[in-house]
Amino acid sequence: MRYESDPLLAGRQAQLRRALAATRDRTLQLVAGLSAEDCMVQSMPDASPVKWHLAHTTWFFETFVLERAQPDFAAFDPAYRVLFNSYYAGVGERHPRPARGLLSRPDLETVHAYRLHVDNALDRLFAVPIAAPVLDLIELGIHHEQQHQELIVTDLKHHFWSNPLHPAHGPLSEIERVAHCATGWLPFSGGLVEIGRRGAGFAFDNEAPRHCVWLQPFLLAARPVSNAEYLAFIEDGGYRRPELWLSDGWDTVQREGWQAPLYWHADLRHHYTLGGDRALAPAEPVCHVSYYEADAYARWAGARLPLEAEWEHAALSGWPIHADEGNFLESGRLHPGAANEHGLSQCFGDVWEWTASAYLPYPGFRPAAGTVGEYNGKFMINQMVLRGGSCATPREHIRPSYRNFFPPAARWQFSGIRLARDTR
Amino acid sequence: MRYESDPLLAGRQAQLRRALAATRDRTLQLVAGLSAEDCMVQSMPDASPVKWHLAHTTWFFETFVLERAQPDFAAFDPAYRVLFNSYYAGVGERHPRPARGLLSRPDLETVHAYRLHVDNALDRLFAVPIAAPVLDLIELGIHHEQQHQELIVTDLKHHFWSNPLHPAHGPLSEIERVAHCATGWLPFSGGLVEIGRRGAGFAFDNEAPRHCVWLQPFLLAARPVSNAEYLAFIEDGGYRRPELWLSDGWDTVQREGWQAPLYWHADLRHHYTLGGDRALAPAEPVCHVSYYEADAYARWAGARLPLEAEWEHAALSGWPIHADEGNFLESGRLHPGAANEHGLSQCFGDVWEWTASAYLPYPGFRPAAGTVGEYNGKFMINQMVLRGGSCATPREHIRPSYRNFFPPAARWQFSGIRLARDTR
Amino acid sequence: MRYESDPLLAGRQAQLRRALAATRDRTLQLVAGLSAEDCMVQSMPDASPVKWHLAHTTWFFETFVLERAQPDFAAFDPAYRVLFNSYYAGVGERHPRPARGLLSRPDLETVHAYRLHVDNALDRLFAVPIAAPVLDLIELGIHHEQQHQELIVTDLKHHFWSNPLHPAHGPLSEIERVAHCATGWLPFSGGLVEIGRRGAGFAFDNEAPRHCVWLQPFLLAARPVSNAEYLAFIEDGGYRRPELWLSDGWDTVQREGWQAPLYWHADLRHHYTLGGDRALAPAEPVCHVSYYEADAYARWAGARLPLEAEWEHAALSGWPIHADEGNFLESGRLHPGAANEHGLSQCFGDVWEWTASAYLPYPGFRPAAGTVGEYNGKFMINQMVLRGGSCATPREHIRPSYRNFFPPAARWQFSGIRLARDTR
Amino acid sequence: MRYESDPLLAGRQAQLRRALAATRDRTLQLVAGLSAEDCMVQSMPDASPVKWHLAHTTWFFETFVLERAQPDFAAFDPAYRVLFNSYYAGVGERHPRPARGLLSRPDLETVHAYRLHVDNALDRLFAVPIAAPVLDLIELGIHHEQQHQELIVTDLKHHFWSNPLHPAHGPLSEIERVAHCATGWLPFSGGLVEIGRRGAGFAFDNEAPRHCVWLQPFLLAARPVSNAEYLAFIEDGGYRRPELWLSDGWDTVQREGWQAPLYWHADLRHHYTLGGDRALAPAEPVCHVSYYEADAYARWAGARLPLEAEWEHAALSGWPIHADEGNFLESGRLHPGAANEHGLSQCFGDVWEWTASAYLPYPGFRPAAGTVGEYNGKFMINQMVLRGGSCATPREHIRPSYRNFFPPAARWQFSGIRLARDTR
Repeated sequence: MRYESDPLLAGRQAQLRRALAATRDRTLQLVAGLSAEDCMVQSMPDASPVKWHLAHTTWFFETFVLERAQPDFAAFDPAYRVLFNSYYAGVGERHPRPARGLLSRPDLETVHAYRLHVDNALDRLFAVPIAAPVLDLIELGIHHEQQHQELIVTDLKHHFWSNPLHPAHGPLSEIERVAHCATGWLPFSGGLVEIGRRGAGFAFDNEAPRHCVWLQPFLLAARPVSNAEYLAFIEDGGYRRPELWLSDGWDTVQREGWQAPLYWHADLRHHYTLGGDRALAPAEPVCHVSYYEADAYARWAGARLPLEAEWEHAALSGWPIHADEGNFLESGRLHPGAANEHGLSQCFGDVWEWTASAYLPYPGFRPAAGTVGEYNGKFMINQMVLRGGSCATPREHIRPSYRNFFPPAARWQFSGIRLARDTR
Repeated sequence: MRYESDPLLAGRQAQLRRALAATRDRTLQLVAGLSAEDCMVQSMPDASPVKWHLAHTTWFFETFVLERAQPDFAAFDPAYRVLFNSYYAGVGERHPRPARGLLSRPDLETVHAYRLHVDNALDRLFAVPIAAPVLDLIELGIHHEQQHQELIVTDLKHHFWSNPLHPAHGPLSEIERVAHCATGWLPFSGGLVEIGRRGAGFAFDNEAPRHCVWLQPFLLAARPVSNAEYLAFIEDGGYRRPELWLSDGWDTVQREGWQAPLYWHADLRHHYTLGGDRALAPAEPVCHVSYYEADAYARWAGARLPLEAEWEHAALSGWPIHADEGNFLESGRLHPGAANEHGLSQCFGDVWEWTASAYLPYPGFRPAAGTVGEYNGKFMINQMVLRGGSCATPREHIRPSYRNFFPPAARWQFSGIRLARDTR
Repeated sequence: MRYESDPLLAGRQAQLRRALAATRDRTLQLVAGLSAEDCMVQSMPDASPVKWHLAHTTWFFETFVLERAQPDFAAFDPAYRVLFNSYYAGVGERHPRPARGLLSRPDLETVHAYRLHVDNALDRLFAVPIAAPVLDLIELGIHHEQQHQELIVTDLKHHFWSNPLHPAHGPLSEIERVAHCATGWLPFSGGLVEIGRRGAGFAFDNEAPRHCVWLQPFLLAARPVSNAEYLAFIEDGGYRRPELWLSDGWDTVQREGWQAPLYWHADLRHHYTLGGDRALAPAEPVCHVSYYEADAYARWAGARLPLEAEWEHAALSGWPIHADEGNFLESGRLHPGAANEHGLSQCFGDVWEWTASAYLPYPGFRPAAGTVGEYNGKFMINQMVLRGGSCATPREHIRPSYRNFFPPAARWQFSGIRLARDTR
Repeated sequence: MRYESDPLLAGRQAQLRRALAATRDRTLQLVAGLSAEDCMVQSMPDASPVKWHLAHTTWFFETFVLERAQPDFAAFDPAYRVLFNSYYAGVGERHPRPARGLLSRPDLETVHAYRLHVDNALDRLFAVPIAAPVLDLIELGIHHEQQHQELIVTDLKHHFWSNPLHPAHGPLSEIERVAHCATGWLPFSGGLVEIGRRGAGFAFDNEAPRHCVWLQPFLLAARPVSNAEYLAFIEDGGYRRPELWLSDGWDTVQREGWQAPLYWHADLRHHYTLGGDRALAPAEPVCHVSYYEADAYARWAGARLPLEAEWEHAALSGWPIHADEGNFLESGRLHPGAANEHGLSQCFGDVWEWTASAYLPYPGFRPAAGTVGEYNGKFMINQMVLRGGSCATPREHIRPSYRNFFPPAARWQFSGIRLARDTR
């Protein structure tokens, strides 16, 4: 294969090389201020240590790209095949997830050497033309690492909060104070709409195939629910009234003793942020709520959560997001901001928005071939779809058809609420 | 209100009176052969003792009908308000579900007296015209009791199987031996179809509103998957190959040590039935499988499970079921039978069929008003829809729009598998 | 062997025949008022259903006596070998302990038939001389059944209390009201004393061998701690002051939410008894306390619990108990009574008294030969010794050297507190 | 107070100053080769991170010595009062034990600064005469830190073994190969013996008061049970024969899947040591066994475990241990060695020896005054006594009356077996 004769492929390879370098580099920037000790902690089974994220994203390239494409492939350390496998049964055994925080060895320095070793090997790959299927896997690896960039942020927030000292990750960027205003409702007429992957750009397998959905007419809130609005729900007894909750949600509230979103202080006036403890800003989107809380809030408010098809159909009007728009990982703010636009705002960035749709395959869904087919499909049960990305999502990672998913009790992501209503 | 002037209402009241008597009577017939000791056992937290079912269905009429409609209402025993409340937070406190088997008092005789007391009070209600909203609640109570008739059968099966003596509930009806034949695939063209409650007959709130759904063209298997077919899956390593399973499903298989459907013996040649242990019949539908197993089987077979809209759209061709058709509770067989028809068969009766649809509200769903609104809506999370009824379902209880729902790991219902495929 | 030539053995056989009949008969009397449903309930894993006790005590005779001594032995039902085995690994498999309440079959009537069958077979054995080792096993079986008589009472109390209706087992016998008086302290000089099995009468293997123990001088309280005294401990913050508790005890208090003895109401003025709910009598011994509570109370009171050797040495002064003395099972009261004697009182009957001694083998201990050697020895870890019997213990079952034992958190036995102090 | 006038006190102060410096210094030597990441890991709730041990031993001096004796006391960091409190309820709240591994902050460097800060403050104290009660607390703090030196070693061993890479802590010292010989039995005549604290040297409160115990004549094995002997037990089905085990022990074997001592490989020929994986040496003492295993082995061998009074009475013949004797922490070997002496050997060092005695107060026991009274007394339940110290115990920390204690299922200490027998 010679790519001189295929300028399209050559262009894609060059573009991926830049994207790979930028992505790998940003991961390092994200963890730049952290000590080896900071990178060790696993504060709950759902979260992972930063060091593990650094190694696992590297393992992904080593296992799915280098092992396949490198003629003289030799593992950096054969033990890593097991240590840094997240959930790929096709690759073999895995170190138990809740024990990821016990690995003082390999140390952080060695993990950085591992990253460098794999980066160098990828670099050598790029010196010659790369077959399209391998380029596909490199592209998948880039998007995979972007996902873990977001998890590094959310897991770190949980870790620091778990420490009674409540350390700050860094100073929060300056916050523009915005007055709190009532939200508006935007009407959509429904009918037969198409959703799912569009065009030739990258998308995960779970966003395909593009297909038709029949929608009733609906209204969508112009912005996410704010802290002030959510506080009114709490003060109206929201966490003490079973009639507002799904049965499993109420059980969870009782069992976990929830009385407010994750990271809120008991005084309901402060919360923990990556900039440390600070006062709640009324106009900021409420964040770190579970699906159960989003659903109960919506019921209390006489509304409902949007379907993912409604959300995607509506959000397209705000796409694409440009380099200077939206509150994403790149802003370095690591905290959602208040809405300050007119019309439909904040669909992308700030907070993930819970939808009323279960995470299930689209009609005609086919998982990607090979072991990477485990990436999305095998989680299609017991989870709800979230849309739009958050302040911890890289800007280039998100798109209108992007389907994120978490179990209904998960709260440590930057997850918020946008309401919908039936048109009456 | 005088119903002499409203013959429609009068007719409905008369019809409900007959249905009520027939339903209450059939419950007693179902438990006729059981001792007080048999009626005490709760073999797992998901199941309830027969005595509890007898009392709870009575409690439903007492609480939702008599307390509202009886001028001089006095509770049979005020303690029952708590003891026999299943999950209605609007009614108040509940006896903890896993402790239902600890109630030697009230004894079975007293529970029968409770039934009689409430039956008599209902009878007195019927002596005069009943307001339509109360008739609605009586109708709901009838369908509620029919659901519990099925649960009495499934809970009893689990109870007897939990006893190492494996007692039989009664002799299984004679079984007609049918040769095992390959299934066929029936094509459907999809497009915009309507599903949900039709007409004025009774339906649960979760079947409404009737609404449009856009379907791709699809194929549906002519009959449910048989024991012989499922055995081939097991013998091909079905329970040992993670690539066939959803991630949560594989975790469940490992944790629970599943190697076959519930009630199968380790020899894979026999199973426990309500007629005792007996040889597996190859042509009978496989039964007592979880959603996880149904989904894994479908993946192994190169197919998938149907959406509930596909199922409902297709099954309408076989509706209505007449008094002499189908294998329902009335047959007394209490075991699914082999298919022996041509065309689409066994949609109704024999085994519940897992669908690929999560149990979520239909567009525009509104729960019933008042406390009975807790009946369906608050369970709309973490469950999958099953369709069509089983050999333990009363015939008049089922309809094409009927939505049953259980968590994906549940196996003690008569739940089976019907495959679907995309039209290529 | 002919026992005509051995009048001693003949006398023993005759005496045991009478004791056996009386013991088997009293078990039936104990359960006379209970329905089949009452006999089914297992309210916690530590307790067993009455039906299980009835069958297990019979199983003991069948397995250890008839199977060995009956020439033409045939099991009543071979499945019972597993179903009614408590913990004898030497006999084979066992039905899981927490599942004893799931056995509606065999029904109570069949269990009574089982008892009769075994009683008749034992009767036939007695028609001819019985070898001494078999007589030993019959004697063991009698004492074993007496233990289970006490467990029937304590398990039934827990069962009825677990039912929100709090049914009474029967009317409590009339209670003589006694004024509450301060207790006295009786001095003992210690030195080298002998404890353990004395003479040729029956004793369990764990009471032997008789051996020397060196004791410091000590004081023993004249009577058990009363409800009034224990209430003062509670009102002085006893359950909220960690410095009064063993570390494991404090963990248990926190985890279980203990605030008073088992069966006490939250008002600290009433408790549940087998005669139903009733007011606490200040002068009655406090009952249903764990070792942790007994130890914490003693620390609060500036005293300690007695060693089992101190207890046995002191209690011998009150022995033997005669037919009209003491509050035992025979009194039918099933509730401890207040002290009304001078000097050392209530060592035997009323409440078991926790000692400060771990349940460990005496120097030179040898378990009984064969499978019955599992009776006592294998439990010699993680348990504390209690002495003296309770109002639920048959009078002839107790003796000064008797060692009862329970884990330190157990509360459902009639367990109370007698204080000791060092002589200063 | 002027100690110029009290040369005895002055001498004691000088001696404690040297001991303190030596002890604090040895702790640092022990952890010298470890990275900050190594010092973070908590591999199970029973173990603690090295960093926590470093801080907690410092906290002990700060809280119990400086806060009391330093005129201008100011906490290094007030948050440490909670973070590094182990279990002293009298001091107040505690960071939850299982969460000790989540503290990336304070970092290791800060903890070393904390140590230095407290060391300097203690140094200033020593510049003037110190009151005797404060000297007592300093002495207690030294012995407390010595205990934690042993825990640093045992927790580190568990940590490294939990890492699939099985890193070595360092090269094991050279091991002198010793032929495996049968052990001998040494006779003791028993009678009235005295045990407990002797003389004026330091001892924990739980070793007092010295008191009389009556012993039967007994035999004690000349050396601990060897790997070869224990292997014979395993190969004779030791872990598969319930009749050899206490009931709780057998439950533990089943639940935990034990088939050999902790750290043994499945091949029964290798084990993990702090020098890495290596072949088992037949003549070395078996190590890392629980009380349950020690007890089962003894039963299999037709022997028993010694009482703590027997052990202490016998071991006095080998006391004192001199600077060049015994295998203690100072040897740096961190692994038990084979016996190579005649007569009673290895009572001190090598492996802790489980006794058949429950850890309970001696007659007349009084806990130390104040919060340090929580040190020992509140653990006197559910634990068994071990005697003699191990290869991880500082030599000056051990003495004949020393009572160590662990729950019967604990295995991560260097715990072994010495047999005893009754003289027949």
